[in-house]
Amino acid sequence: MWKNEVTKLLNINYPILQAPMAGGVTTSKLVASVSNSGGLGMIGAGYMTPAQIREQIREIKQLTPNNFGINLFVPNEIHATESEINTAMDLMKPFYEELQIEEKQAKVSSTEAALVNFHEQVKVVIEENVPICSFTFGIPSKKVVVELKENNILLIGTATNVKEAIENENLGMDLVCVQGCEAGGHRGTFIGGFEESLIGLMSLIPQVADQINIPVIAAGGIMDGRGLSASMCLGAKAVQMGTAFLTCQESGAHHVHKEAILHTTEDEIVLTRAFSGKWARGIKNRFITEMKEHEDGLPNFPVQNTLTQQIRGAASSQNNQEFMSLWSGQSPTLAEHQTVEELISKTMSEAKAIMT
Amino acid sequence: MWKNEVTKLLNINYPILQAPMAGGVTTSKLVASVSNSGGLGMIGAGYMTPAQIREQIREIKQLTPNNFGINLFVPNEIHATESEINTAMDLMKPFYEELQIEEKQAKVSSTEAALVNFHEQVKVVIEENVPICSFTFGIPSKKVVVELKENNILLIGTATNVKEAIENENLGMDLVCVQGCEAGGHRGTFIGGFEESLIGLMSLIPQVADQINIPVIAAGGIMDGRGLSASMCLGAKAVQMGTAFLTCQESGAHHVHKEAILHTTEDEIVLTRAFSGKWARGIKNRFITEMKEHEDGLPNFPVQNTLTQQIRGAASSQNNQEFMSLWSGQSPTLAEHQTVEELISKTMSEAKAIMT
Repeated sequence: MWKNEVTKLLNINYPILQAPMAGGVTTSKLVASVSNSGGLGMIGAGYMTPAQIREQIREIKQLTPNNFGINLFVPNEIHATESEINTAMDLMKPFYEELQIEEKQAKVSSTEAALVNFHEQVKVVIEENVPICSFTFGIPSKKVVVELKENNILLIGTATNVKEAIENENLGMDLVCVQGCEAGGHRGTFIGGFEESLIGLMSLIPQVADQINIPVIAAGGIMDGRGLSASMCLGAKAVQMGTAFLTCQESGAHHVHKEAILHTTEDEIVLTRAFSGKWARGIKNRFITEMKEHEDGLPNFPVQNTLTQQIRGAASSQNNQEFMSLWSGQSPTLAEHQTVEELISKTMSEAKAIMT
Repeated sequence: MWKNEVTKLLNINYPILQAPMAGGVTTSKLVASVSNSGGLGMIGAGYMTPAQIREQIREIKQLTPNNFGINLFVPNEIHATESEINTAMDLMKPFYEELQIEEKQAKVSSTEAALVNFHEQVKVVIEENVPICSFTFGIPSKKVVVELKENNILLIGTATNVKEAIENENLGMDLVCVQGCEAGGHRGTFIGGFEESLIGLMSLIPQVADQINIPVIAAGGIMDGRGLSASMCLGAKAVQMGTAFLTCQESGAHHVHKEAILHTTEDEIVLTRAFSGKWARGIKNRFITEMKEHEDGLPNFPVQNTLTQQIRGAASSQNNQEFMSLWSGQSPTLAEHQTVEELISKTMSEAKAIMT
């Protein structure tokens, strides 16, 4: 059970992937520690430039001889009218004042520029021989898939419902990561409604496993051996853990973010699109609460994300958790401040004890 | 693992409870078949009169010598202004016309009358010696709990988050059923926000199990041996299955309802409060879609439920699924039309095969 087609494909000892959390969490130390401890470390490269990606890949290779992976955001069409942007900026004025920062003109990317950047990211992944590449927010073009596969790169797609899993399989993905509604951070939904795609793993894993042939990796709320063994029972062949790695010593998450997770409860975790224009799960704070009544009208990702960049940055510098995006899955009370090695070995021994 | 404190407490062979689905699903035949097959059959008595409850209990006792249970709705304060009711009625006028029925004056219950009815229901449960009683939509008074326990009735509370589970334990409940976001039908939430209490079982079971001492029963999206074994891995001692029993031959669900579940997909299952004024999960249809933009302003349960009674009734008579409440959990593609005995024996053998 613990050694299966996924551990073989990924060439890892344990069926545990570290979720590629974007925004500075996946330091080289975190990624390498996971891979050195028998799991699969992954770079959350969605917001990184091609040059930054190249640098981090090279750094990680110095730290581990083992396989690791990388995750890219599939770009979506960017559209926001001048008036949508102005309305959103007006809504955020009070936060600029409260954080005592000056509003700078935000540079919103164009669809074309985002696509060019994505293709450059892919090029670096190929040039630097990263063995595993995953995608979220959509599926890449057939051309990109073929190119990566020709370079012997193993591909992992993301799905939040059965249709998305089937699309990933049809496109040629080698594995699919199913993101349950429990998951922290951004929702990967790209087919169908956001609400209809908030599916608990108890329902999502077996329904996907029944309808595709490629192996399923489960993500969302999994924190320990209980979650790992349960996911395997439901039909997953591995798990991807995010929040559990986020609070580890090696993670690059802001210490305020780590502390917030370690001190919150499951009923404080909510969904919001106020930070980025894309629905994401995190700890409720003033920014989420005060933007709530306006969030339906905010520009889509990545525009709103660009518009809140200064606020999030200033809040981080000021250690002010009320205006930071404190992404977390629905199991924060299971999070611990520990080393990656401790997390992985405890998870494996607990799972083995449960299943015997 | 399969014989544990819960099977002992409930005096059943297998750790499987049939969810007490209200509204005609839990026929005596269904309840008795579950208990005769080694699980715990349960009467969904929320909408039943004390006389109907007494009659069904006596009928079930003729059909099985084994334990069975009953579920009651804990009444909440009923408040709706004349204008709220009139607005809601106006919104429903087009449906009356479409179904070609005449609008009758709906009789909305008072808080006092609902409480009197609840106490009479409890009285019947005691007089008829039902061995197990569960509650949803809140917790009963300490007085009711004490009275039931003095009569050796085992009590099961419902929780959708950790705080609710703790409240149930503190009140003296013997077991707690945790309702994951995957669950079909009405949400049991009574402390905290509705959205914050939509917690997937992967997160909910272990977090509750860590914080209370009474045994946990898991409910939501569990349909087979995969769901049963996964729930046990996460820390539950038994499962409560609803949708899986609803499509069984012995269930009293409308044939249109059964067929709808057997032919839908997981991404058609949504949350709505349009039918009853309380959030509930079911298959999307025209009533849900057309009421969506107005649902925040509708009167609370049970007022809205009373107001939609005629529409639901007429839709049932006319086999019109667009205006029926087609409750379903998030795993409809795992549902089968089979006998209760088949469902229970397949679930157990699959779970045992997974865990060995």
